[in-house]
Amino acid sequence: MLNAVGRELPEEINGRKLKPYKGPFSFKPEGRRYAPPLKAVFPDEKKVLPSIKDAIKKTGLEDGMTISFHHHLRNGDYVINKVLNEIAKMGIKDIKLAPTALFPVHEPVIEHIKNGVVTSIEGSLNGPVGEYVSKHGMKNPVILRSHGGRARAVRCGELHIDVAFISASIADEYGNCNGMMGKSAFGAIGFAYADAFHADNVVVVTDNLQPYPVSPISIPQIYVDYVVEIDSIGDPSGIQTGTMQITKSPSRLNIAKNVVEFLAKAGIIKDGFSFQAGAGGTSLAVTKFLHDYMKKNGIVGDFVMGGITGFVVDMLHDGTIRKILDGQSFDLRAVESMANDADHVEVSHIMFGDPHTCGCVVNRQNACFLGATEVDINFNINVNTHSDGLLLHGIGGHQDAAAGSDITVITIPLLRGRLPVIREEVTTVSTPHHTVDVVVTDAGIAVNPQREDLIEAVKGKIDIVDIEDLYKKAKNLVGEPKPPEFDDEIVAIVEYRDGTVLDVVRRLK
Amino acid sequence: MLNAVGRELPEEINGRKLKPYKGPFSFKPEGRRYAPPLKAVFPDEKKVLPSIKDAIKKTGLEDGMTISFHHHLRNGDYVINKVLNEIAKMGIKDIKLAPTALFPVHEPVIEHIKNGVVTSIEGSLNGPVGEYVSKHGMKNPVILRSHGGRARAVRCGELHIDVAFISASIADEYGNCNGMMGKSAFGAIGFAYADAFHADNVVVVTDNLQPYPVSPISIPQIYVDYVVEIDSIGDPSGIQTGTMQITKSPSRLNIAKNVVEFLAKAGIIKDGFSFQAGAGGTSLAVTKFLHDYMKKNGIVGDFVMGGITGFVVDMLHDGTIRKILDGQSFDLRAVESMANDADHVEVSHIMFGDPHTCGCVVNRQNACFLGATEVDINFNINVNTHSDGLLLHGIGGHQDAAAGSDITVITIPLLRGRLPVIREEVTTVSTPHHTVDVVVTDAGIAVNPQREDLIEAVKGKIDIVDIEDLYKKAKNLVGEPKPPEFDDEIVAIVEYRDGTVLDVVRRLK
Repeated sequence: MLNAVGRELPEEINGRKLKPYKGPFSFKPEGRRYAPPLKAVFPDEKKVLPSIKDAIKKTGLEDGMTISFHHHLRNGDYVINKVLNEIAKMGIKDIKLAPTALFPVHEPVIEHIKNGVVTSIEGSLNGPVGEYVSKHGMKNPVILRSHGGRARAVRCGELHIDVAFISASIADEYGNCNGMMGKSAFGAIGFAYADAFHADNVVVVTDNLQPYPVSPISIPQIYVDYVVEIDSIGDPSGIQTGTMQITKSPSRLNIAKNVVEFLAKAGIIKDGFSFQAGAGGTSLAVTKFLHDYMKKNGIVGDFVMGGITGFVVDMLHDGTIRKILDGQSFDLRAVESMANDADHVEVSHIMFGDPHTCGCVVNRQNACFLGATEVDINFNINVNTHSDGLLLHGIGGHQDAAAGSDITVITIPLLRGRLPVIREEVTTVSTPHHTVDVVVTDAGIAVNPQREDLIEAVKGKIDIVDIEDLYKKAKNLVGEPKPPEFDDEIVAIVEYRDGTVLDVVRRLK
Repeated sequence: MLNAVGRELPEEINGRKLKPYKGPFSFKPEGRRYAPPLKAVFPDEKKVLPSIKDAIKKTGLEDGMTISFHHHLRNGDYVINKVLNEIAKMGIKDIKLAPTALFPVHEPVIEHIKNGVVTSIEGSLNGPVGEYVSKHGMKNPVILRSHGGRARAVRCGELHIDVAFISASIADEYGNCNGMMGKSAFGAIGFAYADAFHADNVVVVTDNLQPYPVSPISIPQIYVDYVVEIDSIGDPSGIQTGTMQITKSPSRLNIAKNVVEFLAKAGIIKDGFSFQAGAGGTSLAVTKFLHDYMKKNGIVGDFVMGGITGFVVDMLHDGTIRKILDGQSFDLRAVESMANDADHVEVSHIMFGDPHTCGCVVNRQNACFLGATEVDINFNINVNTHSDGLLLHGIGGHQDAAAGSDITVITIPLLRGRLPVIREEVTTVSTPHHTVDVVVTDAGIAVNPQREDLIEAVKGKIDIVDIEDLYKKAKNLVGEPKPPEFDDEIVAIVEYRDGTVLDVVRRLK
């Protein structure tokens, strides 16, 4: 079975039938939303339970069920490990773990995999758990989805959640909660919406129980079965993983400058402009340079969608943009702004990127700037694996932003150390070439030939290079890396946001 | 079939099987939420349509389908009449009309009933349409539900909506909208949530289309299929129907004073106090006197749920309460506060009163003050019909507030003109005696004997009278009114909030 990015797929894996990817907008859903059970909590009933263990018991969690988590605290999260430890102690096995993402802090998950507590994962893997899965596989392949794709899967029941654990930095005893206030404030709680709305049981875990009613109400009481207060849900300083500073590398600063120049010359940056911001060093630089450009030219943008950082907050504060739409806050300035700025609006990841709704935010974005571990000469993008074949990253909002935005710009260096970033074929297709428009490198800008309109728009204004020339240039400089040796076992499935399959990841020999 | 308020019911009406009311918390739902179809709106698709007619066409509305509306603009609403006129012109028949409520302004509905355009109504009837139904009946009996009960019925699919028309005083072209801004601002849009979340198709009708993204986002784009801009959705001055001023009647002011005194003596009014406010002249006086009492005694309440008026806003502004939870705003000061006060929080009517959730707001209320057209010696309440049998009012939040609040206080005059308000048996049971605690009249205060705790709490502090004595007193003064003459035809079914049946309304001879 060959899909529309030329990847050969089995028709079925472990009883799971695969639908091949056929193009970014080729799949219209025919089903209905998942319908969770009705509940009844009467006036004399309480929801606060003394411990996570009690919540696990009360929800009826048992072998073979699925539990979900959000990753707003990123590498500072304490809740996944705490819940899994309790589950393990209680002797519950064969759990499907459905976090929005795992981080290095979740390395203890590996022990739970080894012990049979966790036998499936549907969620993004960043770091050690991904590396473990690459080398050892699991009972079932990991399902990798974009943010919008995961919301879609939850919303239609493809990812059925028995118990959602929602970390909240403030909650009342009836479960109204948000992530904006308290010692562990992490800002937007966009990932939690899909789970709260569709899980069969919802447990809010907080370290900050406050009198009823807590507001703003991100997750309303009507969806929350139980509330547990613990000492700490996490360390908010762990939100700022990786580089949350503007790159200091002159070549990457140059990439960022070129992105803005390209967009400006292509006539994209004008009143009403909107874009999706990112949090990598280059993306932050793009945001900063866009800010400067817009301010200098008196341009006011409609909105920035994020992954929000302080650099975007600056744009809101000085009127360069009218609104921020925020699904997850990427630094503590964004967290503070989320709590204080009325025009910094929390949105769910359903609204951000679920393609099977009446339209998501990415559809409205003029531009997005995204990174990649590899880009190939067909403009396919890899963000999941490295050239050595190790599964080390989630898809994030990559597929969603690329599909929705008028212009999808990939910012990459030509080389990372001794590794070329532009490849003949990416190790893993994370985002299909149909949705990728411009690749900006420190060695030139390539435009996807399918975007004749863009090529026309910048003709004579900006130098465009052929992506094959970039590929050759990189190869001439550092050669081709040794291809990873995979065996046949499929350890992960890369779903496209609509539930079709883009690619699979195989186990490293 | 006899229910728990002693009403005899048929087992079935027009093929609709009735479940008898068995007590306020006797029914636990076993089903699931209604699951609307998944959608897909791709980036190049637009949602704005030039007219209501186009929206009707695009949604595929046809004979026999159900359309819904909210009543936030109350007697100032223009949208129901406009949509029904288009439907009639297009020759569509046999429509089930599911407004949250109809008002005198919707009298043209009667013509549509006569012409077969509208053959069923599920929704509250205030005024002429109710009178028409009382006298003539319809093809199917009208289903009367409380606010929470309607949200429940929509949420579980008992009231299936093909097309929800949502009036918004501001919207963007992707459907994000609210009722807080614009020339037709009406404040909270709490009724629209259940419909937006569960209707098969959603059309936002606005007179104020603004650049994307509009915020605050009450109804998010993901639920909205189409957006139509019209000249005017209504006249916000029509929100303030009836008496929105504190009563000037000395006897009603006395009732209000007695309510506060009763609650104070019963030890209910203390820090953390919460109540549901109403908008009748006596309820407004209760709110005002509570405000005075709390302020004088340095008491700070947790929240007021409403039906919010400026009198509650005053309490928020001077710190007498911490939060307002608002499902519908009852005057223009409430509308203004909704837009400007962060602690004036919009809530859906699912959250307000749907009993088949993980707990609604009414469960958290210490007290509520409600009116009645009749109260009987068993403490059953009628708010739907008058003693002449005419169906003239909806249930509103009456059942919900009564069921959830720690103390439900009914404020009534002993007489209305030459009519006694306390009856041997109410004409229609709208709210069951199991959830009614105190009846405060200008001739004394009666406490439901089932509330021994309350009787004990005020013993020696407040004079309590027997409700039968109040009944006799009224009868001695004005006699019994002539009982209405009904024929057998059932023209309306009064559902309890959980979907069981409290009573039926029969056609007047």
